[in-house]
Amino acid sequence: MRFLHTADWHIGKKIHGFDLLEEQKDAFQQILQIAKAEKVDAIVIAGDLYDRSVPAVEAIEVFNQMVIEMNLQEKFPVLAISGNHDSSTRLETGGPWFVQSDFYLHTRLDQAFQPIEMKNTQFFLLPYFEPISARLYFENDEIRTIEQAMNEVVKEMKTHFDLDKKQVLVSHFFVAGSEKTDSETKLMVGGLDTVPLSVLNAFDYVALGHLHGKNALKAEQAKYSGSPLKFSLSEIDQKKGVWIVDTENQKPLLEFKEIHPLRDIIQIEGSFTDLISPAFYESIRKEDFLHVKLTDRAVIPNMMNQLRQIYPRIIGVERLYGREEHNENKTVKTELKTLAPKQLVEQFFSEVTGEELTAQQQDWIKENLAEIHQIERGK
Amino acid sequence: MRFLHTADWHIGKKIHGFDLLEEQKDAFQQILQIAKAEKVDAIVIAGDLYDRSVPAVEAIEVFNQMVIEMNLQEKFPVLAISGNHDSSTRLETGGPWFVQSDFYLHTRLDQAFQPIEMKNTQFFLLPYFEPISARLYFENDEIRTIEQAMNEVVKEMKTHFDLDKKQVLVSHFFVAGSEKTDSETKLMVGGLDTVPLSVLNAFDYVALGHLHGKNALKAEQAKYSGSPLKFSLSEIDQKKGVWIVDTENQKPLLEFKEIHPLRDIIQIEGSFTDLISPAFYESIRKEDFLHVKLTDRAVIPNMMNQLRQIYPRIIGVERLYGREEHNENKTVKTELKTLAPKQLVEQFFSEVTGEELTAQQQDWIKENLAEIHQIERGK
Repeated sequence: MRFLHTADWHIGKKIHGFDLLEEQKDAFQQILQIAKAEKVDAIVIAGDLYDRSVPAVEAIEVFNQMVIEMNLQEKFPVLAISGNHDSSTRLETGGPWFVQSDFYLHTRLDQAFQPIEMKNTQFFLLPYFEPISARLYFENDEIRTIEQAMNEVVKEMKTHFDLDKKQVLVSHFFVAGSEKTDSETKLMVGGLDTVPLSVLNAFDYVALGHLHGKNALKAEQAKYSGSPLKFSLSEIDQKKGVWIVDTENQKPLLEFKEIHPLRDIIQIEGSFTDLISPAFYESIRKEDFLHVKLTDRAVIPNMMNQLRQIYPRIIGVERLYGREEHNENKTVKTELKTLAPKQLVEQFFSEVTGEELTAQQQDWIKENLAEIHQIERGK
Repeated sequence: MRFLHTADWHIGKKIHGFDLLEEQKDAFQQILQIAKAEKVDAIVIAGDLYDRSVPAVEAIEVFNQMVIEMNLQEKFPVLAISGNHDSSTRLETGGPWFVQSDFYLHTRLDQAFQPIEMKNTQFFLLPYFEPISARLYFENDEIRTIEQAMNEVVKEMKTHFDLDKKQVLVSHFFVAGSEKTDSETKLMVGGLDTVPLSVLNAFDYVALGHLHGKNALKAEQAKYSGSPLKFSLSEIDQKKGVWIVDTENQKPLLEFKEIHPLRDIIQIEGSFTDLISPAFYESIRKEDFLHVKLTDRAVIPNMMNQLRQIYPRIIGVERLYGREEHNENKTVKTELKTLAPKQLVEQFFSEVTGEELTAQQQDWIKENLAEIHQIERGK
């Protein structure tokens, strides 16, 4: 059995307001090309198909088209689970029809105990779940953590093991010792949501989703595939892609196949004068999602607008050496109460934008504050 | 070809805050029983499967279970369209897989021109659409109304007619001359959304959805099935059910099969003393959805609470002969500005509930107004 392992598609996700659907469609086409080139027998998606429990209509259209292409047109069997970002019920619609074309989409805990057998391998598709579901399923009130739940889950799975076959677990959780990045969901504090690696020993391979870096977990037979795209600045140095897993040998063979994004997340660094000079911007992919590191300290009027005319997808600006200030920030903050309304607006504007108000903006504020004042006095 | 025609399921609808899922599941079971007893070859659902474009998770669970039972378990072919209450994109998910088991769910205009042939009949499944969709589909900027659009739609459908077969149109709109009830969506003013009956002459039968009464349209070969349940007081005298349509003869044979609701919408009338007497309430189905017609004119303290203890599903109370008033309403309204806060609250309460404040409620208001007054003065 040879399969492709991917996860965390997060269809519909935006970064800093920028839609990623074009990038996601492109990454999907690469996944499909890899699947064909590698002649895999199935595509495994380990949860977080959508970014939100109620995806936008545009996200649904894109995702529907992907599964149609993958499963109905290219005839790949698909083995998928819901992740913590998905609404299991919303995702479930159509499930009983999907199986007619070998598209297995498990969204409920009880489905995890119906292994899907393909060639020499049994796949256990375990959707993301909360301890309460395990408490109800096992009728065991003592299950309080995911670790306790997983002990029971694996115990029950083992009763379905066919020892002439390999066993692969597809799941979506945080394995103890993994490293997180900023784009993953905030996880619970206190380790209640982590699963020790030892629980997963029973399987020949564990195809994980949840963390967005392929190296988040240092283990031989349990891997995060990572997301197909970078979703935050903290993932800037990660290679993105999918695992090709072959279970024909004693130990599964793994190979990582890279995905090259339509538009990458990159950082650029320089003075404002550098950044707006053609010599600089013509040497880089200025259509990428850009984090800007500015070396200037001076206030630059209308900076963001000028940068955006050259770089349409700025996701952040950082002043490497700080910004020249008229006042010390800390002192100012304690004095906020004593500032006049106009000064408050000026200060807020400059803190948020890193710029000073223009004369026109100052006039506008003056007029509006006067109007508000009149309304307050009951005019 | 013998089929069952239903529409306007509105799964997830509430009336006056009361969930109808139990009633909807029960009505569905009756529809299924009718389909089996009548040995139909297919079930036609003419739109408004859900009540909202983004249905609640509970509604999705109920609807999913219904189609699984109807199509996968009982093996009925299903021919359905999206209505104006459905989100066509959200409903579309799974569509390409559904056809493998003869479940045809059309949500886009272009699908209307792919007739589904069963036995001696061609079904044209035309989802609810806006004129803009027809403008784009036909690349004709002059299409501004549904009538104009339907002329083009029918013309194109006719090119697919197999004259050895019967033609049935399944659609969801307002046919000129039909009668509306309160539970239907507010329709556009000015007739832009109405379709003349003559446009529909090309078909042997038109299975309509949108209006909730089976007799909304007086035409022989074009029928609204009506909703399976009453959704408003204005439907109180309607018989609800489904049409059984047989196209084997020259003219289609029609028979209406009634659905009996788990809980009906009924009206009760009497004095308050009558209504709370066991002799009265034991003689009626007090679990039904009740509209109460009260003959008293006197103010009755705590009336709603007392009635609700006996009748858990009151959807409205009407004073048949008005209510005794201390002041003339009209005069009062112009004087609202001169009332003290406590009087304002009293008046509002009595207008909304039809009751006077109890002594305890009066005390509570006094205390709270004092507190608000203190806050206003900056305490």
